Amino acid sequence: MTDSWVNETLYAAWGQRFRVRRELARVRSEFQDIMIFESETHGRVMLLDGVVQITEGDEFVYQEMLTHVPLLAHGAARRVLIIGAGDGGVLRRVLQHRGVERAVMVEIDGEVIRLCREYMPGIGGEAWTDPRAEVIVGDGIDYVRKAPAGSFDVVIVDSTDPIGVGEVLFTDEFYANCARLLTGRGLIVNQCGVPFMQAEELAETSLRRGKAFPDISAYVAAVPTYVGGFMTLGWSAKDATLRAVPVEEIRARAQAAGILGTTQYWTPEIHVGAFNLPPYIARHLPQG
Amino acid sequence: MTDSWVNETLYAAWGQRFRVRRELARVRSEFQDIMIFESETHGRVMLLDGVVQITEGDEFVYQEMLTHVPLLAHGAARRVLIIGAGDGGVLRRVLQHRGVERAVMVEIDGEVIRLCREYMPGIGGEAWTDPRAEVIVGDGIDYVRKAPAGSFDVVIVDSTDPIGVGEVLFTDEFYANCARLLTGRGLIVNQCGVPFMQAEELAETSLRRGKAFPDISAYVAAVPTYVGGFMTLGWSAKDATLRAVPVEEIRARAQAAGILGTTQYWTPEIHVGAFNLPPYIARHLPQG
Repeated sequence: MTDSWVNETLYAAWGQRFRVRRELARVRSEFQDIMIFESETHGRVMLLDGVVQITEGDEFVYQEMLTHVPLLAHGAARRVLIIGAGDGGVLRRVLQHRGVERAVMVEIDGEVIRLCREYMPGIGGEAWTDPRAEVIVGDGIDYVRKAPAGSFDVVIVDSTDPIGVGEVLFTDEFYANCARLLTGRGLIVNQCGVPFMQAEELAETSLRRGKAFPDISAYVAAVPTYVGGFMTLGWSAKDATLRAVPVEEIRARAQAAGILGTTQYWTPEIHVGAFNLPPYIARHLPQG
Repeated sequence: MTDSWVNETLYAAWGQRFRVRRELARVRSEFQDIMIFESETHGRVMLLDGVVQITEGDEFVYQEMLTHVPLLAHGAARRVLIIGAGDGGVLRRVLQHRGVERAVMVEIDGEVIRLCREYMPGIGGEAWTDPRAEVIVGDGIDYVRKAPAGSFDVVIVDSTDPIGVGEVLFTDEFYANCARLLTGRGLIVNQCGVPFMQAEELAETSLRRGKAFPDISAYVAAVPTYVGGFMTLGWSAKDATLRAVPVEEIRARAQAAGILGTTQYWTPEIHVGAFNLPPYIARHLPQG
């Protein structure tokens, strides 16, 4: 038996490591270093620039919470824009919703899509060939600049941390364009890191999001491989009632959408409860 | 700068590692290998037999949820028994509650207490000298065997995983004795591991707990250094209404007990929401 380990390099003085069964791909794309390997504990794992992005074992937590919460809070989302998420997992969850007519996914790195389709085909599943899906290899910041006003109901940003290639997705200009391209009940969610380790990420993006949207908050998910307790998903909406939909209404919408009973992490109760932030996280949000 | 790392050895093929600023203590006690070091990211860290037990940085999550949830669910706990928890953090949280008249802590390893008092004095704080506290260096399984019937309102088990020295705290005999020493509204909580990594731990202890208590469940906490998403805290009660106390009643009790506003993770909403388990965790509990 080999004894080969991959050490995540996200933090300088703390890290997680995986024993590698075999390396499947290692590619230097135009944008980043992409590595996919088979772990002994988490199924297949993809790292970008040394940071764990997705594992087959726990991807359901992040994908379900990043997708089902905004779509069911909106309640009638027909057009969804996904930025990043090259593995296809968010696209697959979005297309599970019966009411979705069109899902546009804009991923900057075509190599991520190609490698995930080859080595982690279960993540995206049938989504790649769904007639409602449009997959664009391109720059998300350009796409939102050109998208017509009011052309989407929900935007989901599944980016890396605000370093490297993902940095432009955390700018004032990006959020202002998202506000413009969203409908009147529209909202955007974006990953805001793990506050226990990266508190400044939530604080900074919340201030920026607040310049473009009247209702700024965050909700939490306990993602095994985004280590450090809860990760936060940023919530920016034009309509503050969207994050106060009662649990029975969320359940009814999930039933109608075809989501109820399909999830491993998301439930109507967890959806509603995820907006209750521990004080150590809440203090990084702007005062409401 | 030195570049010395400590690798946790809990799992064979996955682990976390900390960069060490300096080692403070390394002792082989009668029961286990105890190590305390200063990390760069999490303050001081204690490992027992290579497994992270507590860090100064994130101890509040585990201690608050292990203490405040059972005490406030009970609502009138006067006598509390703590098994393990040699760092003193649970004892300190228990004694925060104004209504507690007596807290007995039984820790098998006196060296853990001695080293934590010396190197992590903030964890236990003033609790060590509180006149309501009785700290016993002894065997928890013996203590519960001899304790009079109905002598405690709440039992908190803060043990290692069910391997090594902690194993006896997961046996049928231990739970039967806890049921006997508890009052009619009494309940016991115990740590049940991280289901994403150790699902069998929750499943097995739940079956055993179910032989001694009519109401078996679990609640969740996202503890940064107990890595792998939610950890579960086992819930065993004689009275099923205790885990269905409304949020406003929990808030009122916390106000009266002197807890409201003192916490960094626990809130009344998080207390109530913690019993909503993700499906991937709920399926390891016996069918209700």
